[in-house]
Amino acid sequence: MVSLRTPKGTVDLNPQQSLTLEEIVRKVKSIFESHNGVPINTPTFELREILMNKYGEDAKLIYNLEDQGGDICSLRYDLTVPFSRYLCMNRIQKIRRYQIANVFRRDNPSFKTGRLREFIQADFDICGSALPMVNDAEILRMIYDILIAFSLPYAFTIKINDKRILTGLLKVCKVPEDLQQTACSTIDKVGKLTTEEINNELITKGLSERSVSGINRLILNNENKTDLETILNLKEIIKTSKLADTMSSSLSLKNSSDESILDLTEFEKGVDDVEMLLKYLDIYKVKNIKLDLSLARGLDYYTGLIVEAVYEGVDVGSVVGGGRYDNLCASLSSNTLNVPCVGFSVGVMRIFALYPPITPEWDVFVGSGYGLNLEDRMDILNRIWALGLRAETFTSKRVNYMEQVEYAKKNNFSVGVFTGDNEISKGSV
Amino acid sequence: MVSLRTPKGTVDLNPQQSLTLEEIVRKVKSIFESHNGVPINTPTFELREILMNKYGEDAKLIYNLEDQGGDICSLRYDLTVPFSRYLCMNRIQKIRRYQIANVFRRDNPSFKTGRLREFIQADFDICGSALPMVNDAEILRMIYDILIAFSLPYAFTIKINDKRILTGLLKVCKVPEDLQQTACSTIDKVGKLTTEEINNELITKGLSERSVSGINRLILNNENKTDLETILNLKEIIKTSKLADTMSSSLSLKNSSDESILDLTEFEKGVDDVEMLLKYLDIYKVKNIKLDLSLARGLDYYTGLIVEAVYEGVDVGSVVGGGRYDNLCASLSSNTLNVPCVGFSVGVMRIFALYPPITPEWDVFVGSGYGLNLEDRMDILNRIWALGLRAETFTSKRVNYMEQVEYAKKNNFSVGVFTGDNEISKGSV
Repeated sequence: MVSLRTPKGTVDLNPQQSLTLEEIVRKVKSIFESHNGVPINTPTFELREILMNKYGEDAKLIYNLEDQGGDICSLRYDLTVPFSRYLCMNRIQKIRRYQIANVFRRDNPSFKTGRLREFIQADFDICGSALPMVNDAEILRMIYDILIAFSLPYAFTIKINDKRILTGLLKVCKVPEDLQQTACSTIDKVGKLTTEEINNELITKGLSERSVSGINRLILNNENKTDLETILNLKEIIKTSKLADTMSSSLSLKNSSDESILDLTEFEKGVDDVEMLLKYLDIYKVKNIKLDLSLARGLDYYTGLIVEAVYEGVDVGSVVGGGRYDNLCASLSSNTLNVPCVGFSVGVMRIFALYPPITPEWDVFVGSGYGLNLEDRMDILNRIWALGLRAETFTSKRVNYMEQVEYAKKNNFSVGVFTGDNEISKGSV
Repeated sequence: MVSLRTPKGTVDLNPQQSLTLEEIVRKVKSIFESHNGVPINTPTFELREILMNKYGEDAKLIYNLEDQGGDICSLRYDLTVPFSRYLCMNRIQKIRRYQIANVFRRDNPSFKTGRLREFIQADFDICGSALPMVNDAEILRMIYDILIAFSLPYAFTIKINDKRILTGLLKVCKVPEDLQQTACSTIDKVGKLTTEEINNELITKGLSERSVSGINRLILNNENKTDLETILNLKEIIKTSKLADTMSSSLSLKNSSDESILDLTEFEKGVDDVEMLLKYLDIYKVKNIKLDLSLARGLDYYTGLIVEAVYEGVDVGSVVGGGRYDNLCASLSSNTLNVPCVGFSVGVMRIFALYPPITPEWDVFVGSGYGLNLEDRMDILNRIWALGLRAETFTSKRVNYMEQVEYAKKNNFSVGVFTGDNEISKGSV
């Protein structure tokens, strides 16, 4: 006999769990719709080559389909790369789309914390060229509204950062360009690893002692500052770096390659944009924002805003993640279609792990008081269904009055209708 | 550069298509709910061994996952076998459940007719012991209501048969037991193949000339009879066969193995049950039913009622399929859990192929009459979103009044709000 279980890292959801999940999805979707999102659907699997080189060090978690003579495919790892493929294929320059669907990762599973190998993501993305940070601000407003809508009894923080700032700081710390992405993967482990473990990993990856000490001072140590203090601090860093560059340049000290004059244009733009973003978030009345310079996220494709939302005091990891990915389309498309995109993903199964369960309620139980009266009951059911109400009866050989009443009570029926040989009685259960 | 397409037999659905699909699913789900269905969710893939030997000659269409060191899995082929696995695992004896989810078959694809390799099924099943044909009648009532709910401009027929009747007729036609299932697969091709092609296939599969001629007379030729005439005819066949058995028995003519006395108990019960079912369908006011003795369906697991619904004059195949599968649980479970089940599956993508497309409509477009006024517009948006309305603005650098009006008209906004330097104008677009 076969073993009756679900594959590792996957679960069945019983009716109560499924209804709870539906409620979470309904809430998210209603906010997606109020921002004029339109749904699209992409397949569960993609050509494998489309998923290559998009997920940094996590690519090993992709599920492959067996080669059965045909396309070489893999299950989707997220909804962002398939969406970019969709944009490119259809040459779409402007869209606000959502997709709520399952994604697959061969990760270390845990049901309790909502970490599964198959899980639901609810994605919203705004694509198309726009004034700086306007769409980014709307995305953060949506994340804030969604977290409020769940009405969970936990405080939450929406952590933001900007890839241009992070890259700028790594430059200032003299991290060579080819090590910046892998350094980000390590920095992303703040909170999971101790500072010592992070430093060791950075050294192992080939960063110099001086770079690591710079990272500690500039990136890992800004927890107790307000966002405006952090902005001022970043401006100060840029000013100092420029001054240092000018001085060493005028003293003709620049000769080794890693001491070349830093191009901090993007860094500066990032800081200005985040300052503007904070102003827009004020207009949008978005609270619970925290500019966190150590927020990195593992994915390769982010280019600007990075965002991650967490509930305080619970162990489910981030419940929302996202950011700006302006170059993903261009990286897929040979016809250099470039569509600036910013979006986010709600980890529905992680919310689910925190969510109070929902019990179904029904309308009418049709029972029999005395005698089988099956055809009478069928006739009554028929009329109730025609009204659009939800109704059910016992279809077993024997009908016991009390057993039916117990069943109707236990299953939250609001009305019971009972046929008898001579009567039809009706009343609230 | 990679090829930007979806894998063979899969498609993207654009917003209009996705909204149309959602509407179809919403209609089906509302009828599932009115019959007190509860949702469950099972994983997209199952342990491969669970799917083995359930799908007759179609098992070759199962998609396998690559062995990446872990469970050996395959994508689900339908929602029925996973559901039976769920029943057994949780030792559930009674449930009315629905599941609306994607299934996967490496079949010959065609988008136009809704035949895809990944497609959505909407399943409803009633499980648990019950009086004969009561749940079967409810299932047919649901199928009828769903087909009515789609309001499509095509006539439809709900074809029914009973596996016990089909097996009985094959017995009467002297088809050996080990060829009955494969004979069913061939008979199931009525409408796709000519009678001659069917006869040839049956002969090739090893049936005798006499069996094939019997099948033609008794199974393939009952199109122009009413259901009651067919029932009477079946009763006549049973009577005659019994008489023939009695006669040959009293004449001691039974000696070769294929001439043994036929056990027609199940056949007779099938005929009586279908007669009862037709009476219940009268009470439930279900029309468009046609008892079709050639309806077989390829799947191994059916034990009683078989059902298939088709629209007349369109080429999408059957849009609903289902039946009774009383032994599927027992075939999975080593602890001989047996749960009688009857259910059906709506081929959502095939309905989709026939369905009129739906266009999204929005509430408020926030524009600028003169000047950028971005922060004013953001403030207005903020207040509109807070009301739960759907709103959007232009976020490009230039704003041209007429361009905004055109956009709002084209995208079915119901209200436009425009800011100016000195005014806020408001009106229906």
